[in-house]
Amino acid sequence: MPDPHVAAVGTSPFGRTELTGRDLFSAAVAEAFEGGPDPAEVVDAMYVGNQSESYEHQIMYGTLLAEWCGLRHVPSERVEGCAAAGALALRHAVEDVRSGRRDAVLACGVEKMTAGGTAGATNALSAAFDRALEQRSGVTAPSQYALLAQRYLHDTDATERDLARIAVKNHANAAANPRAQFQRETDVETVLDSDYVSPPLKLFDCAPVTDGAAVVLVANADVAARFDDGDDRPPVRVAGVGAGANNIGVADRNLTFVEGAHEAATEAYDEAGVEAADVDIAEVHDAFTISEALLAEAAGLAPRGRGYESALPPAERSDGWTDTHLSTSGGLKARGHPIGATGLAQAVEAYEQLTGTATPERQVADATTALLINEGGVADAVTVAHVLTT
Amino acid sequence: MPDPHVAAVGTSPFGRTELTGRDLFSAAVAEAFEGGPDPAEVVDAMYVGNQSESYEHQIMYGTLLAEWCGLRHVPSERVEGCAAAGALALRHAVEDVRSGRRDAVLACGVEKMTAGGTAGATNALSAAFDRALEQRSGVTAPSQYALLAQRYLHDTDATERDLARIAVKNHANAAANPRAQFQRETDVETVLDSDYVSPPLKLFDCAPVTDGAAVVLVANADVAARFDDGDDRPPVRVAGVGAGANNIGVADRNLTFVEGAHEAATEAYDEAGVEAADVDIAEVHDAFTISEALLAEAAGLAPRGRGYESALPPAERSDGWTDTHLSTSGGLKARGHPIGATGLAQAVEAYEQLTGTATPERQVADATTALLINEGGVADAVTVAHVLTT
Repeated sequence: MPDPHVAAVGTSPFGRTELTGRDLFSAAVAEAFEGGPDPAEVVDAMYVGNQSESYEHQIMYGTLLAEWCGLRHVPSERVEGCAAAGALALRHAVEDVRSGRRDAVLACGVEKMTAGGTAGATNALSAAFDRALEQRSGVTAPSQYALLAQRYLHDTDATERDLARIAVKNHANAAANPRAQFQRETDVETVLDSDYVSPPLKLFDCAPVTDGAAVVLVANADVAARFDDGDDRPPVRVAGVGAGANNIGVADRNLTFVEGAHEAATEAYDEAGVEAADVDIAEVHDAFTISEALLAEAAGLAPRGRGYESALPPAERSDGWTDTHLSTSGGLKARGHPIGATGLAQAVEAYEQLTGTATPERQVADATTALLINEGGVADAVTVAHVLTT
Repeated sequence: MPDPHVAAVGTSPFGRTELTGRDLFSAAVAEAFEGGPDPAEVVDAMYVGNQSESYEHQIMYGTLLAEWCGLRHVPSERVEGCAAAGALALRHAVEDVRSGRRDAVLACGVEKMTAGGTAGATNALSAAFDRALEQRSGVTAPSQYALLAQRYLHDTDATERDLARIAVKNHANAAANPRAQFQRETDVETVLDSDYVSPPLKLFDCAPVTDGAAVVLVANADVAARFDDGDDRPPVRVAGVGAGANNIGVADRNLTFVEGAHEAATEAYDEAGVEAADVDIAEVHDAFTISEALLAEAAGLAPRGRGYESALPPAERSDGWTDTHLSTSGGLKARGHPIGATGLAQAVEAYEQLTGTATPERQVADATTALLINEGGVADAVTVAHVLTT
């Protein structure tokens, strides 16, 4: 079975931009292939994670982007699972290379969210909830996640201040990440003083609306070698993949244990032959601060009810925690959350950490194992996990 | 490598219905699993072809439908390539079973198109064209295909009457297909007298707007055996898969040779170890009558410039034609064209023909090999081909 490698990565600027979706994509592709072979020489197939036709009245994003980067006859396909679309694209690329069917596959994510403002994005995102049973109640992404947070604060020792610390930690990481949307720090009082969006979640508990694109070229060893720039960096392998799911609505869910993420992470660990304790860095889907706490627990990085300690230095956390560093990129919260691109932006951070090319301020020393968890819908309606190793 | 079989198929009613997307899906699933094991006992993953969030303000259709049929924790994913989405879902199911990663995968397609009327559907479909370069010119699906038809009539001996004969033949087939939207015949004069939508294409050259769902359970031999009802029918295998592509816009295309379909069909033939001459029945993507002519040529069933003879009995066609029967279901033209479901409806027809369970009026005697070509965008922007054999 060919071993899938991360051969190259790239991102566009993240944030509020004047760029269209295809131009965001071009920026990401340009970075990934700079100094390497042309896309047309190596790419056998493409998958594009993209959430919304509402943002740009554009479907067929696979074909559009293949043509846009000169891959006219390369089969390219859009995949959609709301915010998990990026990891779905990555998973297809990995499976295609593993099966030997393709030598190199470009996993892409792109989202142009800001044109319609926050209201436009909120409306577009509401399409991820059940039209018949939830949308008609007026639910939004923050109000759905607020249900999880209310229950979590009720069931555990966590406080709103603990959630605020997660936001502060992720802003500090983003301040050291040139790819981040918010390259600035914040403090606990600022987070706590920000307006409630849906109690207990405040503005600074929420990931922003973001324009952005990210690409990851997944390739077998031969093609990956063509991107080797002669340094001594270890190759990065995609060693494990897992998928989990839950029902789309929250009414019949365990609100404080994210089952789908637990299944996905467990499957990815098993495939990679690692355990939670081996994970040096984890990019988890912190669409809201509560998510980071819940996903740390679901992935076995934290004991049940203690995931909210993710912002503490490893030595200060409760027994049962691993030494994992979470959301070193700044996470969705501060690196930004361009829906279809987020799962691939997570992989870009893992690639930088595992190759030792992250900025010194956020580089985790000797990182060899990374966990990615990308989700769509409320928490685990769709979950995809990847384990990357050197 | 496990051999992927078509274990079960089902469709909803096709046409203008009062059913929502999820209810259409339920009808298709109910048929497929009637008398067999429950979906929850056998389905390991789902793929859902669905084009539009515009029709129902609903994304995450994978998760929604998994929950809807009791598959709460089964990973399910939406794939999108406009009208090729159904075959993309089928292809993923086939590849998952081939690789041994899954034992049984449900490929689903669903589209609820009629709620917004023809104008709503036309607007939704226009999202399949390039937003920056084509949509702003006011193009629609009929006007794009009319460009291909104009060129074809100019370059070949074909006439509008020849195209009309394709519509008449497909209506006659649909009249014998209980699954079809239009179960009634028409005649050449009626087609020729219908209003121009975009010259030379008239109303009766165009596939209709359709609500509908179709599902195909792809499984390895062990699971497929659980659906065996004890008759002597041969098992149906998915013997070959192919994918092709072209740029999204028509400006830089060969208008009369559908390159992507040629590539896709050739790849599928090669995988299956068959040739065009072996194909007994072909369901090709006749979104417009011109498409059937073009695709017969691209797939090697007809000599170049003679695909318009597809409505003639095999013995009356030009030299170089195979004996293939085209669109025995009635095709998109008369069976109906629920965008995301069409590729799977093609597979349902192939299953019926290869198992000898089509209605006697349209059953092709001793059919053993079927070709499916499903496309998205104008002609071959996305093309997926499958070869099914007994």
